[in-house]
Amino acid sequence: MPAINPERLLGDLYKLRTFGTYKTGVHRPSLSPEDVASRQWLADRMADAGLDAQIDGIGNVLGKSLAPGRKVLAGSHIESQNQAGWLDGALGVIFALETARALREDPAAGDIGVDVVAFCDEEGHFGAFLGSRSFVGDVTEADIDAARNRTTGQSMRDALAAAGYASRPRLRIDPRRYTGYFEAHIEQGSTLESGNLKIGVVTGLVGLWNFGITAAGQQNHAGTTMMWERRDAGAALVRLFVAIDRRFTEIRAARTVWTVGNVRFEPGEPSIIPGRAEAILQFRDVDAAVAQRFEAALHELAAEANRAGPCEITIQGTRRSEPAAMDARFQQALEDAAARHAPGLSVRMPSGAGHDAQVVAREIPAAMMFVPSIGGISHHWSENTSDEDIVLGARVFTDAIASVLKSG
Amino acid sequence: MPAINPERLLGDLYKLRTFGTYKTGVHRPSLSPEDVASRQWLADRMADAGLDAQIDGIGNVLGKSLAPGRKVLAGSHIESQNQAGWLDGALGVIFALETARALREDPAAGDIGVDVVAFCDEEGHFGAFLGSRSFVGDVTEADIDAARNRTTGQSMRDALAAAGYASRPRLRIDPRRYTGYFEAHIEQGSTLESGNLKIGVVTGLVGLWNFGITAAGQQNHAGTTMMWERRDAGAALVRLFVAIDRRFTEIRAARTVWTVGNVRFEPGEPSIIPGRAEAILQFRDVDAAVAQRFEAALHELAAEANRAGPCEITIQGTRRSEPAAMDARFQQALEDAAARHAPGLSVRMPSGAGHDAQVVAREIPAAMMFVPSIGGISHHWSENTSDEDIVLGARVFTDAIASVLKSG
Repeated sequence: MPAINPERLLGDLYKLRTFGTYKTGVHRPSLSPEDVASRQWLADRMADAGLDAQIDGIGNVLGKSLAPGRKVLAGSHIESQNQAGWLDGALGVIFALETARALREDPAAGDIGVDVVAFCDEEGHFGAFLGSRSFVGDVTEADIDAARNRTTGQSMRDALAAAGYASRPRLRIDPRRYTGYFEAHIEQGSTLESGNLKIGVVTGLVGLWNFGITAAGQQNHAGTTMMWERRDAGAALVRLFVAIDRRFTEIRAARTVWTVGNVRFEPGEPSIIPGRAEAILQFRDVDAAVAQRFEAALHELAAEANRAGPCEITIQGTRRSEPAAMDARFQQALEDAAARHAPGLSVRMPSGAGHDAQVVAREIPAAMMFVPSIGGISHHWSENTSDEDIVLGARVFTDAIASVLKSG
Repeated sequence: MPAINPERLLGDLYKLRTFGTYKTGVHRPSLSPEDVASRQWLADRMADAGLDAQIDGIGNVLGKSLAPGRKVLAGSHIESQNQAGWLDGALGVIFALETARALREDPAAGDIGVDVVAFCDEEGHFGAFLGSRSFVGDVTEADIDAARNRTTGQSMRDALAAAGYASRPRLRIDPRRYTGYFEAHIEQGSTLESGNLKIGVVTGLVGLWNFGITAAGQQNHAGTTMMWERRDAGAALVRLFVAIDRRFTEIRAARTVWTVGNVRFEPGEPSIIPGRAEAILQFRDVDAAVAQRFEAALHELAAEANRAGPCEITIQGTRRSEPAAMDARFQQALEDAAARHAPGLSVRMPSGAGHDAQVVAREIPAAMMFVPSIGGISHHWSENTSDEDIVLGARVFTDAIASVLKSG
């Protein structure tokens, strides 16, 4: 069995944490100087591991195995959210690197190998999964022309030029090269921790549906306009939210989540009745049929609100990603490996967050594995996982990949 | 009976509309170049009317009558809201000017007179009623130091210096000089129009209470955090609003209004559960006892929400103005004058909006009179009143003031 080196694994994770350190986490947005430096460091570490490493025209880092036999692609992303955690993405990339090293060092491994990838901008500073989508041929040059950093406004072209990547070609996946794709990640929730479990075998990634909701009423004076004559767009939107919450609670599935993350009243003055109110509603589920049920309910509730008046509600779908199922054989391999290293401590579970695996799954079979997040926290500098859980996770991950490759 | 001159009255209103014309309304924020020019024009028109006119250190324009007998102070304000209507404020100032002229021209008027005032910044570009509050001694130099334009951020000191008012003293009311204060205004609502009425005799100005409401929860990932484990501050605030709306509807008085004009979720991202949500709730009533009932209900509902969890609601009073009753004798004089000029077409009504009259009423008896607003619209460039209604209103206004002054 290929043996990982815990000190080397943790040492690389600690080193990666020094690029853009922020409190106990990191601030390493895509294509920032710290991010670009970390990509070069990663490419160097890939080369040290005997991989043919390159950084492409969109910042994807790919280290190709020179092994002649079957290969798995493994990895995740390396940039962070703003002022966020040290393991989100980084863990999966270093797990993949350590697996590549362990296989190369294992005399019994034969001719199998692992290509290691760090996709650029999974965290969406410039867009949605631009790195992995570029890798599967789903990003045009016009998409890159249009992409801007959501925090700084910098164009992606300028950022790529500053990084020195602008003139490079973009790498494309060769599906025939791979048995499949494996990605490890922190759970970003508390299912594992609260169940005293160590390994999550991901059954599928939830789909995500965003809807813009707008209420149009009549802006007016908040002192002289009587309650009965008002067309208060803010009040209409708030009433709709409560109705949505009630209905969704009735028709939800076990894993459904819904969120109103942003709302805006116009003109937003204490003494003016809002003439317009806008919000974004998001829901996620592993089952597209549940999402269809939610979407139908949303339109029904909006129609009911419009019949009742006095404001006009409109619904506009703004983003949609379908649920992605993970490969059944890979799930079994992960579960079997977990049973060897941590008997009884794994669980099959969906992923509520989006990951590059859902993009790569369009081209080749894919798998994801979770390790526990302390307190369920992520996208925050305090995000963490114990060293013991990290090492155990890497053992399971490497073992599962080796078994998949050996079984053909 | 003193006779107003309709052509002169309307001519002055039309002329005033040329300072900062915006569509069919005006954009004449306090101390803007257009506003400063209009103040000088007004002072010149006051001088033409035989008044001793001056503009003081905060931009108040005061034209003092030279008549030796009893005097009324009459006026309103001359600046506008941003991109707003031509009559809000201007109507009351020109009514007062026309009344002063009509009394001066009436051989039967004797020694009575009218002082005309245009208070600066009733519309609150730099603060709350700064001009009239300065006139009653309720604005310190430190208040002016701190005042900034809510749209441009310019300090009031800089604006006063640019206007040429900085070195001037601020005028203070001499309560012994006046029988009382009269202010005419557009209704800014549709009570008169919908009842086919022409004159509103204001019984009192509503008090206004603003409360900042904050919900504190836990910011988290909108995909991985299950519904049962969320502490969604946005959802908590929305639930509270609906509870407030239900309770307030039960305990309201006839004239109570309440409004949530602004709301903000943090961080305001579609994929992040809001960790904090803030809003401003305002309510208004003519009766302070109703407001106390509302305030008590608000605190009860917040306490109920806090007992239910999972977020923490806090309530903070941010602004409060007490209701101001209008003088009973002045109300009768306005009603009697309305009966002479427009029999059966007046109504006693409260004012839902705040006006300088509520500030001046702290020092001397005060009265307000409304003319119809077409469609109830104000604070919008389409605000309007028919010429006939303007002229009729000025006749009633002048007649009422003359009768009050003559009766001692």
